[in-house]
Amino acid sequence: MLTHIVLVDVAEGTPEDRVEALVAGLRALPAQIPEIGSYEVGRDLGLAEGNAGVAIVARFATPEDLRTYIAHPAHQAVVADLLEPISPRRLRIQVPAD
Amino acid sequence: MLTHIVLVDVAEGTPEDRVEALVAGLRALPAQIPEIGSYEVGRDLGLAEGNAGVAIVARFATPEDLRTYIAHPAHQAVVADLLEPISPRRLRIQVPAD
Repeated sequence: MLTHIVLVDVAEGTPEDRVEALVAGLRALPAQIPEIGSYEVGRDLGLAEGNAGVAIVARFATPEDLRTYIAHPAHQAVVADLLEPISPRRLRIQVPAD
Repeated sequence: MLTHIVLVDVAEGTPEDRVEALVAGLRALPAQIPEIGSYEVGRDLGLAEGNAGVAIVARFATPEDLRTYIAHPAHQAVVADLLEPISPRRLRIQVPAD
């Protein structure tokens, strides 16, 4: 089991509805991609300057399931249509799930 | 309860022992900072190019506990002595803990 974490920096001045559309698009993925083990999407609480805007914490049973998720058309569409237009940068990692 | 996530980009060519020293230093913090609710430190599995090198996923009961952690001398020392010298950038977020 592995944990896939993505922190998404959201461009300054991005309209609220564009961020909410991204969160909704991400939260709709587990219903479309059965390889997802668990999937949490959270918005920054605003406790510090310079934070990322959105976090994805997902768990997959195997690296193959992760690759299926990443290549899945539904995921690709959310990244291309909802995430990339509002995100200047993001950091990603996969770590062993405790 | 909130989840504090930090993804640490590790500079290319950083010696293995410097990364392991950072992980060990981070994992020693819960014993020194009682405000930490839970604390997971993971190293990237190497499944994709361009990933961050280290992830911290910590939980705190309140924002005040998080601030105590961030300001704590033990945390400050790990950041200054072990993290900053090997990390060109990092992204951070705090989200509601599910």
